Amino acid sequence: MKQITSAQNPFIKSLVQLQEKAKARRLSGTFLIEGQREIQLARKGGYEIETILFLPDMLTETEVKNLAGRQIEIIEISREVYQKLAYRDTTEGVIAIAKSKSLELADLQLGDNPLLLVAEAPEKPGNLGALLRTADAANLDAVIIANPKSDMYNPNIVRSSVGCLFTNNIATGTTEEVIAYLKSKNITIYCATLQDSTSYHTQDYTTPTALVVGTEATGLTQEWRDAATKNIIIPMQGEIDSMNVSVAAAILIFEAKRQRGF
Amino acid sequence: MKQITSAQNPFIKSLVQLQEKAKARRLSGTFLIEGQREIQLARKGGYEIETILFLPDMLTETEVKNLAGRQIEIIEISREVYQKLAYRDTTEGVIAIAKSKSLELADLQLGDNPLLLVAEAPEKPGNLGALLRTADAANLDAVIIANPKSDMYNPNIVRSSVGCLFTNNIATGTTEEVIAYLKSKNITIYCATLQDSTSYHTQDYTTPTALVVGTEATGLTQEWRDAATKNIIIPMQGEIDSMNVSVAAAILIFEAKRQRGF
Repeated sequence: MKQITSAQNPFIKSLVQLQEKAKARRLSGTFLIEGQREIQLARKGGYEIETILFLPDMLTETEVKNLAGRQIEIIEISREVYQKLAYRDTTEGVIAIAKSKSLELADLQLGDNPLLLVAEAPEKPGNLGALLRTADAANLDAVIIANPKSDMYNPNIVRSSVGCLFTNNIATGTTEEVIAYLKSKNITIYCATLQDSTSYHTQDYTTPTALVVGTEATGLTQEWRDAATKNIIIPMQGEIDSMNVSVAAAILIFEAKRQRGF
Repeated sequence: MKQITSAQNPFIKSLVQLQEKAKARRLSGTFLIEGQREIQLARKGGYEIETILFLPDMLTETEVKNLAGRQIEIIEISREVYQKLAYRDTTEGVIAIAKSKSLELADLQLGDNPLLLVAEAPEKPGNLGALLRTADAANLDAVIIANPKSDMYNPNIVRSSVGCLFTNNIATGTTEEVIAYLKSKNITIYCATLQDSTSYHTQDYTTPTALVVGTEATGLTQEWRDAATKNIIIPMQGEIDSMNVSVAAAILIFEAKRQRGF
């Protein structure tokens, strides 16, 4: 088995670039995944794994081979190399190089009566990760990120999604492109917004539906509010006037699921 | 106006103890609140403010006086003192010394048909803060923390609740005490748990109801599951088998609110 013990190794340096630079990820079409569970979910989600690097202190060769399956290159690395590559504080001892997917709107496969979540420009990777966890739990047809603030394979997003980046159908596009896409598919657009909006629980989500949420700081852009079939609001009856975006999205998604009988 | 410029001042040292030690908070019956909005919400929530310390670079004397109201001591402090006391990264320039409340179950004032959230031993202050934000939005009758991991006036909890620690009716107690309390009030106990449970959306939350959630790591204890009128579950249809506790609580709370017509 191949071994790499020096963090100065040029191949390792190229992997550090994948962690640090969106451009390096884009040019190579690859990104890194840490953790056994995350790698398993990526494989299950149809991501192609090219190489697995592991720390022999933390995983046995058998564990790594089971994780890798056939025909995947396995490289044993030193702790120095691992620490150079690992993004997490808690170390799992295993990192995969995976091929990214295109995430084009045109490639989305939707069912007959789709339920989608659209998030416009989510700022915090933690919020995006939480949205993806909820979307996985609800088994949504797709999650669309409009005007993303970074590429989806940013290590911070990979991490905060705890593998749900791989279990969801995800696409990205500009707000304009996403609106055009939804309209072309005759999907009803419900925008969660404070302005001119109706209580969410009075609406019908049993036909093709997109639930659209904006950022906590500024909400949705005017473009979305204009494109909405209906603007909806979660009634706020306390002293505080804002809700965590992943909490708000979960309330809307599960109301739609309830109406659809799960 | 009184001024304190040295972080070595014994009074300032006693305030640092309030930030750092639960025992100091308990013995003095006081704690610190940072931020204008938080201080306003605390006053609105009936917390008594004893003293306000402020950094003249960041707030005018008029702003501080408006915030303080009458008969509250105001002290001007130096940046050195402020940095010693402030828990937050982002500085707001104002800190209040507030009297804690007893948070006894016996002191809770419930309406005729109460809706309560009970959280057993929440581990992360961020999760507890998110629960309190959702509880505020839903205007719940009360939030009860069973077997709390720390006192509620821990600066980490004060901070993560963005003031919702003060806008909610909160009580704490052991799991045994909380169960006895709910039973004595004839409140139906719905425990969110994976074991022997029914889909949450098939249940009726229009009579006196407590929704009970456990930790993400271990869920609810057997004591709660035994005490439950009904164990409920949010159907999980994806690859991942756990949900963020504040997301799960929000889904349950807003289903109850929906059934009650907000």
